[in-house]
Amino acid sequence: MLNLLLGKFFDKNKGVLNLRGTWFSELQTPDLAISLKVKETLHYEKTPYQELAVVDTEAYGRTLLLDNIIMTTVKDEFFYHEMISHVPLNTHPNPRNVLVIGGGDGGVIREVVKHPTVEKATLVEIDARVVANAKEYLPEIAVALDDARVEVRYEDGIEHVRLMEDTYDVIIVDSTDPIGPAVGLFSAEFYRNVYKSLKADGLFVAQTESPFFSGKLIRRIQDDLAQIFPINRLYLATIPTYPGGLWSFSLGSKEYDPLRIDWKRAPQVATRYYTPAIHQGAFALPPFVQEILEAPLESEY
Amino acid sequence: MLNLLLGKFFDKNKGVLNLRGTWFSELQTPDLAISLKVKETLHYEKTPYQELAVVDTEAYGRTLLLDNIIMTTVKDEFFYHEMISHVPLNTHPNPRNVLVIGGGDGGVIREVVKHPTVEKATLVEIDARVVANAKEYLPEIAVALDDARVEVRYEDGIEHVRLMEDTYDVIIVDSTDPIGPAVGLFSAEFYRNVYKSLKADGLFVAQTESPFFSGKLIRRIQDDLAQIFPINRLYLATIPTYPGGLWSFSLGSKEYDPLRIDWKRAPQVATRYYTPAIHQGAFALPPFVQEILEAPLESEY
Repeated sequence: MLNLLLGKFFDKNKGVLNLRGTWFSELQTPDLAISLKVKETLHYEKTPYQELAVVDTEAYGRTLLLDNIIMTTVKDEFFYHEMISHVPLNTHPNPRNVLVIGGGDGGVIREVVKHPTVEKATLVEIDARVVANAKEYLPEIAVALDDARVEVRYEDGIEHVRLMEDTYDVIIVDSTDPIGPAVGLFSAEFYRNVYKSLKADGLFVAQTESPFFSGKLIRRIQDDLAQIFPINRLYLATIPTYPGGLWSFSLGSKEYDPLRIDWKRAPQVATRYYTPAIHQGAFALPPFVQEILEAPLESEY
Repeated sequence: MLNLLLGKFFDKNKGVLNLRGTWFSELQTPDLAISLKVKETLHYEKTPYQELAVVDTEAYGRTLLLDNIIMTTVKDEFFYHEMISHVPLNTHPNPRNVLVIGGGDGGVIREVVKHPTVEKATLVEIDARVVANAKEYLPEIAVALDDARVEVRYEDGIEHVRLMEDTYDVIIVDSTDPIGPAVGLFSAEFYRNVYKSLKADGLFVAQTESPFFSGKLIRRIQDDLAQIFPINRLYLATIPTYPGGLWSFSLGSKEYDPLRIDWKRAPQVATRYYTPAIHQGAFALPPFVQEILEAPLESEY
C-alpha cells in the first residue's frame, strides 16, 4: 500500500525506469518504512531467484535491492561487512580456509581477504546475477571478487554445507531475511551441517536480524546453536539502513571464544567501523536483549 | 513533497484528524524519510513555539512529534533517555543537583531520579504544552515529573544558564535539532554559560545529532568544548527512530572522566539499554567517527 502511495519506482513490465527525483520505499515491517530519494535507477531485472535492482540514492549512494529490500548501500555497507567478517576472523587465531554463504555483492569477501592468513575464500552464492551486477554497479564493494584466493561458486549454500566435512576454519552466513530461498539458512539442520563443515576448531557467524523486531527468531536461533556449538554468543552493531538501526549476529564456535582474544596476534586491517574495542563492546548486550535470550522458547517466531 | 505523496496526516486548519490506517512520514534529511503506520492521531496543537502532535503508531507505540519530527516513542525511548542520563550521572561520584534543559516529555527526569544521591532535579523546558501533553498522553515517560525532588520551570534554557553560577553537579541538554529555538543550545556561548553554571567538579552532556549526517556539526561542537572543558568526550548509541540509527552525545567535564569510573560505587538502577559495559563501549569510536573529530575545522556546518 505504501508503495502505491509513493509510486513503485519501477514498472515490472517495462524493466528499468529512470524517474529522476522519485523515491524508493522499503516496507521494513508491515508498519515501518524507510524511503530514499532516488537520483537514478541504474538497473532492474528479474533473476531466476528474485527481483534485483540497483538505484543511486542521494542519502546512501548506490543501493542494491533484492525483492525491494535494501541489501547494501555504498555509504553504509562498511558497518555490516566489517562486523560480520572481522569478529569471526579475529576470533580464530589462524583462519586459512573461509566460506561465505550468500553475500554475492562481495562486501564480506573484500573484508575476508584483508586477513593475511587467509589462503582460500569460497563464496557460495545462489544467484549469479547478484555477483554480475555487483561487479558492474558496486565496484567498491565487489572489488575483491577476482582476487586469486577467491573462488565464486553459484550453488545453494544449504546444499554446499550438506556435502562438506571438516573443511573450513570460518563460515560466514551473509543471508537475506528468512523469507523465500533464505529460510533454510535459519534452520537447526543447516547449523548442524555448518558444524560438520567446520574443522575441529572452526567457528561460524550468521546475520540474525533485528533484536527490536525479531526477538523470537533470535531466541530460537540461539537455542539451536546452544545445542550444537560449545561456545555460542550474540553480538550487535548499528546498521543505518536496516530496520530499527540495530542488528544482531550469532556466533557458534567449537573452540575459540570471541571474548578471549589475544589482540597482540590480531592482524592490522584497515576499517571504518570495526576496532578491537568495538569488537568487545558489541558483545555487551543491553538488558532488553538479555531478556530476549532468557525468555521462554516459543514455537511460533 | 513526500508529505504530499503520503498525505499529511493532519490538517492544520482542522486541528486533530484521526485517519485510521494512514502513515506519518518524517523527512529525516531532504533525501531520507522514516514512515510509521498510524493507528490513531491522539492530539494536535500549535503551541507558541512549535507544532505538537501525539500519534499512536503500530511499530513504536505512542509517538511525540514536534514540528513533524519524531522526538520520542514509547517503544524505543529508553535507548536515548538512559544513554543521555546514566553516562553523566555515573561519571559524577555524587550528583545531587541536576539540571535538564529541554526534555519536556520527562524521560530524562525519570532516569535522573533513579539515582539515590539526587536531591533536586530542575527541568527547564521552554514549552509548557510539551510537559502537559506528555503527562496526558505519555504517562510512562512523564511518570516522574511530579516527583517531590523535581522542579519544572517554563523558561528558556539559554537564559537559565546565563543567570546561574556554580550551581549544578550535572547538566543534561535534551534538545531538539539545531533549528529554530534550539539553535542557541549548540553555540559556544551556551557551552560557556553551562560551564559557569556547573559546580567546580561539574559535568554536562548534550545530544549532538548523527555522526553519519552531521559530522561537521559534531566536529565544531567538540572543538568548542575542548576550549572550555578540561575533559571532553564523544560517545555513541543506537537510537532506532533517529536518522541513521546511530546518535552522538558530547560530554564536557571539569574533573571526572567518564572512562575512569569506580563502578563499585555506581548505584544499581533498573535499565533496558544502559549497563556499565555499554557505557564503556559507547566511547569506543569507530574510525569513521575519529576521522570526523580529526578533520580540519570548517566554518560551514
